[in-house]
This record gives sequence, structure tokens and C-alpha cells, in this order.
Amino acid sequence: MKVRATIWGENVHETTNQIVLDIYPEGMHSQIAKMVGAEGDIETRTATLQQEEHGLSEEVLKNTDVLLWWGHAAHGDVHDEIVERVMKRVWQGMGLIVLHSGHFSKIFKRLMGTPCALKWREAGERERIWVVNPSHPIAKGLPEFFELENEEMYGEPFSVPEPMETVFISWFQGGEVFRSGLTFKRGAGKIFYFQPGHETYPTYYDENVGTVLRNSVRWAYNENATFADPSDAPNVPTDEAAEKIEERGPKLHKDGEAGLR
Amino acid sequence: MKVRATIWGENVHETTNQIVLDIYPEGMHSQIAKMVGAEGDIETRTATLQQEEHGLSEEVLKNTDVLLWWGHAAHGDVHDEIVERVMKRVWQGMGLIVLHSGHFSKIFKRLMGTPCALKWREAGERERIWVVNPSHPIAKGLPEFFELENEEMYGEPFSVPEPMETVFISWFQGGEVFRSGLTFKRGAGKIFYFQPGHETYPTYYDENVGTVLRNSVRWAYNENATFADPSDAPNVPTDEAAEKIEERGPKLHKDGEAGLR
Amino acid sequence: MKVRATIWGENVHETTNQIVLDIYPEGMHSQIAKMVGAEGDIETRTATLQQEEHGLSEEVLKNTDVLLWWGHAAHGDVHDEIVERVMKRVWQGMGLIVLHSGHFSKIFKRLMGTPCALKWREAGERERIWVVNPSHPIAKGLPEFFELENEEMYGEPFSVPEPMETVFISWFQGGEVFRSGLTFKRGAGKIFYFQPGHETYPTYYDENVGTVLRNSVRWAYNENATFADPSDAPNVPTDEAAEKIEERGPKLHKDGEAGLR
Amino acid sequence: MKVRATIWGENVHETTNQIVLDIYPEGMHSQIAKMVGAEGDIETRTATLQQEEHGLSEEVLKNTDVLLWWGHAAHGDVHDEIVERVMKRVWQGMGLIVLHSGHFSKIFKRLMGTPCALKWREAGERERIWVVNPSHPIAKGLPEFFELENEEMYGEPFSVPEPMETVFISWFQGGEVFRSGLTFKRGAGKIFYFQPGHETYPTYYDENVGTVLRNSVRWAYNENATFADPSDAPNVPTDEAAEKIEERGPKLHKDGEAGLR
Repeated sequence: MKVRATIWGENVHETTNQIVLDIYPEGMHSQIAKMVGAEGDIETRTATLQQEEHGLSEEVLKNTDVLLWWGHAAHGDVHDEIVERVMKRVWQGMGLIVLHSGHFSKIFKRLMGTPCALKWREAGERERIWVVNPSHPIAKGLPEFFELENEEMYGEPFSVPEPMETVFISWFQGGEVFRSGLTFKRGAGKIFYFQPGHETYPTYYDENVGTVLRNSVRWAYNENATFADPSDAPNVPTDEAAEKIEERGPKLHKDGEAGLR
Repeated sequence: MKVRATIWGENVHETTNQIVLDIYPEGMHSQIAKMVGAEGDIETRTATLQQEEHGLSEEVLKNTDVLLWWGHAAHGDVHDEIVERVMKRVWQGMGLIVLHSGHFSKIFKRLMGTPCALKWREAGERERIWVVNPSHPIAKGLPEFFELENEEMYGEPFSVPEPMETVFISWFQGGEVFRSGLTFKRGAGKIFYFQPGHETYPTYYDENVGTVLRNSVRWAYNENATFADPSDAPNVPTDEAAEKIEERGPKLHKDGEAGLR
Repeated sequence: MKVRATIWGENVHETTNQIVLDIYPEGMHSQIAKMVGAEGDIETRTATLQQEEHGLSEEVLKNTDVLLWWGHAAHGDVHDEIVERVMKRVWQGMGLIVLHSGHFSKIFKRLMGTPCALKWREAGERERIWVVNPSHPIAKGLPEFFELENEEMYGEPFSVPEPMETVFISWFQGGEVFRSGLTFKRGAGKIFYFQPGHETYPTYYDENVGTVLRNSVRWAYNENATFADPSDAPNVPTDEAAEKIEERGPKLHKDGEAGLR
Repeated sequence: MKVRATIWGENVHETTNQIVLDIYPEGMHSQIAKMVGAEGDIETRTATLQQEEHGLSEEVLKNTDVLLWWGHAAHGDVHDEIVERVMKRVWQGMGLIVLHSGHFSKIFKRLMGTPCALKWREAGERERIWVVNPSHPIAKGLPEFFELENEEMYGEPFSVPEPMETVFISWFQGGEVFRSGLTFKRGAGKIFYFQPGHETYPTYYDENVGTVLRNSVRWAYNENATFADPSDAPNVPTDEAAEKIEERGPKLHKDGEAGLR
């Protein structure tokens, strides 16, 4: 069975900026989808900001194992209702791959609980991505490092929580460093942040980047995902307790009454 | 110099429920403040939902090193603007101690990025809090375990991210277990969740609970806190790069232009 | 391709204690192997203390994806050379499942870097294993909890490093709790500690325990394992640096000289 | 009360290599001690390999809150008995600061449970240490980065377990990156690894390095340390269980008998 990936693209600069249009004539989301699907084990579809419900209906999310997210110019235009919907699906076990400027997307900030800020410079400088965790599934098949001759510099401090694992750290020509591959978990959902991917450079045509994208989708797929309501807080009645106990002392709730929230 | 703690209480059940009123005639926040301040090294003030800005003005938060949060019946009544304000202060280094039913508060859920759900039962059963991390500052002075003869059962799974450290795990008479003392960090802010404290029992008169509260305030105080804007994402101009580089390739932004967010 | 698991059993109490012999007439390792192999996707072999090289030759380890370890009475009889060999293979990516009294095995203590001590009581009391991380691959197919009517109590504090993830926490009838399922990573090797399995009770016939064993073997298998020397510390000659630099300043080593260690 | 720090120096290259002798005429340990003690709140003493028991008697360790460790040429000459003694004290709550080439010391490898290997190059290149965790106590008072004009390159992958927190990441002129400030915890002991400090450069005269050393000693001091035996595994007799239970089922041990280990 194939892993089902949905690539979400903001699709703004591709239609308004000639540089971006020249590199990604069919949109960044289409090129990312091509890279993700290139080895045949991942089934891809795309969704964009401009579509109804941003292309992320309940039905689409229900049939998505891993969601990839690229946005930059229009984070504020993503409806909060859709953000909540995506967040709930992540909690249920949908993987989420956040790309480049997606660090400031609503969904990433909500899942991290931090500002997700960083330094930046758009100088087309060289970035060298070092594999610091070579046995991690996301690093499979990569050399000890790979280079992108032109990338936007993202610099530390990157205000995210301490990650589950640091997979990549980048060296920038101008003198900065950045934790460019980080894993997190929120509920049943595995999350990977990957730094490269500025829209004015052909990053998503790079073969090593393609390897990272595919590996991360495979890694983020959780076959133990659930469709239960992740925010359910069940009451366990006293007479159904695993150990026999008798109720005692004062209480707020009547039997069977819903909890406060 | 004293650590400055603000104890925030929802103050609803204390005014509407006779059981709670009898136990906490001056409000739960007042009793918690008494316990927190009992050894003289922590300066306390209280704030409640009913006050203007819920008692959490910019001025109050600016002068708060550690905020303690107890809420249950009225999480939804806390204004989002105040939640954002508290969150920003946590990112800047204010400590946050979340008590009992505060697991479902807006502020805790926003900082965790998860549902923060759990099982529960109100049967007045015995809870035994085990110290699993005896060298942690929050456990200082505690015995290997302590008991609360009547508490609300909170049961796993507790849907929070993997903690920085697990300090306490509780045993419940009815057969459940719960990670009842967990630490987290968000930005510069240290966060501690502590499970005991159901409003129909006199938990906040317990001496061991008092020790935990005081220890946690001392632990959460970050003397390296900052008042900088935690969401600032500074551009580093090419000619100010630490290593000399020349700009090359196409770019989106003009020099000095603000970044997108 | 099947995952190749080797079950290592100390095989002492099975030959010296009638109670253990009655429960495990072919040895605990044989029964564990039966459970691990029951669904056909894992190929099993066994090894015991009494065999040459404790049954863990270079050849055996080279062909082992995941090693399970049960020992109790004879930790001290395991040769340090074999411990080093197993440790090196773990660093290269072999999974390791440490069972019950294996918490005090040389290999587990060496990999943890801590005492791995705990409280214990042999009273045949009831243990209830709670799933605190229901979306973890090791919890797949389990109910919210399962019980073992007779087990040895292991109690906190369990002096291991903070785990990567806590999967199970156990409730004991006599009043203790224990983190009974913990994951760690050392080099490329994934490690799972699982608490149940006292030799005087038929724990390794329990179906839920069998599910945990199989799930943990599947989880610990690292398809990105390596046979490289994990302790290699390569010198990068100046003229092979990724960025062109010139050597300057005084140095200890001549060109091509091996590093100190 | 002052924090009591002991600076352990291998003291080999200072006596055998003219370059090192010229920079550190009184030994590296003496200069490190000067830096650590410079603000008056930390009391220092030194110990070296050549002293009896390497200067680390039971008495010295008992009176040491934080131990700093610099070694390079003679890791193998450190007696295993002393390593075990230091490790036990770390478990009891003594802090440990491991410097530079100490990554390959016996004590660090034992506490980590991993190879602790890395890449290296001795070219006197520029290192820029970035603060990635600016609110961490170890980063207090530091600028956003600081530079060492000549340092030995240490490059990733650094084979240590995932740290508790990453405090510093270094950029090297030759193109590598390295996690140059990492925290760990083993038992009650806090551990900090700090990468700079090659003996042929005057690193331990640098003011920012001094700040890091002092901050790390203050951070690693655990006022909740203990002198209990960290490897003690106490039996809890059935009749002393917190909850009343009756012994049942077969057992290995007679009442009061010591556990196996």
C-alpha cells in the first residue's frame, strides 16, 4: 500500500513573481509532488491556498497520511478553521513536513507553542547541509553532507522547543549555522521541519533534497494512527474502575455528567 | 531579591459551590499564595478571572517571574488576547506552573500544541505521588512518596508532548497511573505541570504539596529572562555578515525590506 | 525479508530452580523466541550464557537485527569482551530489547551510563500496564491497559537517563508505580526496556506481552544500520576541506598522523 | 557558600611540547582554574594525572561540587577504578564539565554509553560559536556569537546520545559545523560538554570562554545532590508495602535475602 502524501502550496509567488514563475512554471507544489512521488511508493496530490477550504477538506485530510506545507507570503490568509482541522489530524497521526518559510505558518507555530523565529539573509550564498544523525531514517542514502550553491540563510537562534532529534545542521557561507532538519511529535503525529527551499532558487530540483523529502514522508507515516477524537477526556465511572473502590468525599459532578473544559 | 510569583485563580467554584467555599473561604488562589509565600523567599500576589484584564495587565506580567494557574469551570471565558500576552511573557522567560484542571486551560494547550486530554474520576480515592526524579530541584525535601487521601483521579494517556523531565508519577487506588509532575520549556520560559488540586478536597493545605509549589516556583524562575520581542526575525544585511560574502542570484526582498510572516 | 532476532537467555534458574523449570521446561529464551516468531515476520534464534562466547560470536551478531536480553542470576559471568562486542553492534544499528531483571545486565548499564537501580518486591501481586503513548509502534494492537495477575514489583525511582519516549507505566497492587516501557537510542541502535518477566510467573505466555515483544522487535529494527566502525574519528586534511582554507598557527600532529585517543 | 570546583588536567603536553608550555607555563588546569575562579563565587582546586589517585581521592571528590575535565594524550592512563569513582559521584550529583578532547575520555564515554567520536582537523582555522539557546543559564552574558580566531575543527557527526539541550553550535571556516555546547544528565549529575580548547591555541584566555566555564559550573552545581549509594536496589518487604497485600505465588528469594545483581 502506498503512503498518501498531500503537498500544500501557497501558490502566491509563482503567480506574481517572474523569477519564481520561471523556476516553477507549474507551481512549487507540483515540483515538490514530483520529487516526493519519484520512486513510486508514495502517492501524491496537491492542494493550494486558492482552492475551496484551501484544498484541505475533511475528506482530503482523512485520506492523507502525510501533509507537506510550503507557504511564505500569505500565512495570515490561511483560515483558522482549516488550521484547527489540520492540527487535529496531526494529533490523530497524520505526518507533517514543514518546509522552509513554513516555519512562520500558523499550523507550525500552533503545534510548536513557540515563536519559531530565526535570522535570515537573502544573498544567494552557499549552504552546506551536514548529516548529524546518519542512522536516522530521514538521512538514508545521503552523503555525509550536501550543498546548495544558492540558498537563503536562516540563522540561529531558531525558537522552537528542543526537538526529538536533530537530523541536519547547516553551514552558511556568510558565517551562520542553523538546525535545518528537526523532528517533533505532537499526539500521534510526527513532524519534520526542513529548512532549504527559498522560492527564488531551484532547490526542489536537487536530488539530495528529493531524497530528504521522500525519506521524511516515509518516516512521518504512522501506521498506528487513529481516528478517535484526540481531545476526548473520558470519565471512568467509579463502578467501572479497574480496582474496586467506593466513592467517598464531596464531589462536583453528578454521575454521568460531562467534565468541564 | 525575592522571586515574584503571581497566583492566578479562576475563582468560580469558590463563589458558587458551598463545598469549595467551605474549604477555601478566601478562594483557592489565596490559599495557594499562602503556601507559595510560606518560606519568605517568594513574594506573592493574586489575580482572578473577574478582575479587569483578568488581573493580568502588561504591568503585572512585567513584574511577575513565575505565574501559577488554576482554572476549571471557565477556561473558555479567558480572553484570547490575555492568553497571547501570557504566552509571550512565557517565551520571554516567565515561569509557568499549571495546576490540576489547568491542563485544559487555553494557555497550557497553546504552549503544548497538543490536546492535553486525560481520563478522570471524581471518587475521593487515595493518590500516592511517587518521586521518580529525586535529584530534581522540584523534588527537594520530599520523601520517596507522599499521599493525598482524597483526590480526583487523572489517568493516562495524558496527551502532552514528551516532557523535558518526568518528576512525579501518581498511583491511584482505583487502578490508574498518571505522570503528575512534568517539566517543559517554551522559548525562555520553564513550565511545570502538577496534577493534584481538585477543588472539593483540601489539597492546597498539604505540606508536601506546599513544598512542591515552592520548589517549582524557584525552579521556574529564569534569571536569564529577556524583554526582547521573542517573535522578532531579524534580517542580517549582506554587508554585515560575519564572513565577507557578495550577494548573488535573484531575490525577493529589496535591501532593508521587512521579511514576510 | 524477515527481521532477524536473537533471544539471549541466561538459562540459569531454568536448570537450578524447580519452579522456573516447571514453567519454562525448554528455557525462558525458547518461550520468548516462540512468542517473538509467532506471526511469521521475525526469524528467531536463541543464545545462552553457557555457550561458547555466550552464543554471541561476531558471526551471530553480524546476522542479528535485534537482540533480546534476559538475565538475572549471572550478570557478572558475562565476559566484558562480549559486552563490548554487543555494545559496538548496538552502536552500528542492532536493536536491543532488555527484559525485566536485565536492567542490571552489564550491557544495559554500559549503554545507559547510569546505575539502572530500582525498588523490588517478590509478592506475586497484580501489575497493570498502562499504555501512555498509544500511537507508538510498540503499543500497536494493545488495549488501553493489560494486567498480569502475578508479577514482581519494580518501583521508582528507576535510575536511567530520561528516555526518548515513555511507552508504558505500570500500577502495582502494593502501591508502587514503574515506567515499564522506555525507549532509548545509542548510536544507530534503538533500545527498548520492558519490565515484566519474573521467572517464577508465566509472563512470557501472555498474549499482550507477546504483542509487545513482537512490536518492539519491529520497532528496533533499523534498516539504516551500518557496519562502519562507530568509534572512527577521521582526520579531514586541510587541503580536502569543503571550503578552501590555509593552515596556520602551531599544531600537534604531523600531516596524516593518527589522532590521540 | 561558594561552589567548589576541581579542575582536572592531564598535564602531559604542557610538559612535553614547547608550544603548549609557552602558552600555558603553569599547565592548562591552572589557567582554567583562574578563569573559573575569576568572579569569586567559585572556589577552585586542581588535580592532575600524575598525582596519587590522579588527585581524585574519595576525599577530594566528596568536597567537589563540579569537576572539570581536560585530557587528550593519555586517556588510557587513567585508572578504571578512578573512572568508576568519578562516575559514582556524578550519579550522586557532582556536576561534570568535559572540555574539548575530553570527548574521548573514559569518564565521558562511560557516562554517554556511545563512542563519542567526531571529525577533526588541526589547521588553526576560525571558529564561530553561536548561541542557539540564549535563555540557557550557560549562555548568560554572552553575545549572539563569539569567535576564536584559531581552533581545532571538530565536525559532525558527534556520536553522543541526543542531548537534554543544545546550547551552542559552531561554524568552522573550513566548512564544518559542530554541536559545541551540549547538556546531559546522568543520575543526579548534570553534565556539560564544551568543544573549544585545543592545547596549541590560547583558548582558555578568551573572556567569552571564561564566561561559559563559570556559567557551566554554576549550572552544573546540584544543591539537591545526595551521598546515598546510587546503585542501591532496596527490597520492599510485603508487610511494609504502602497498600496492604498478601504474598502469593512462588518466589525465588527468602524474606530479607539480598537481590541478585
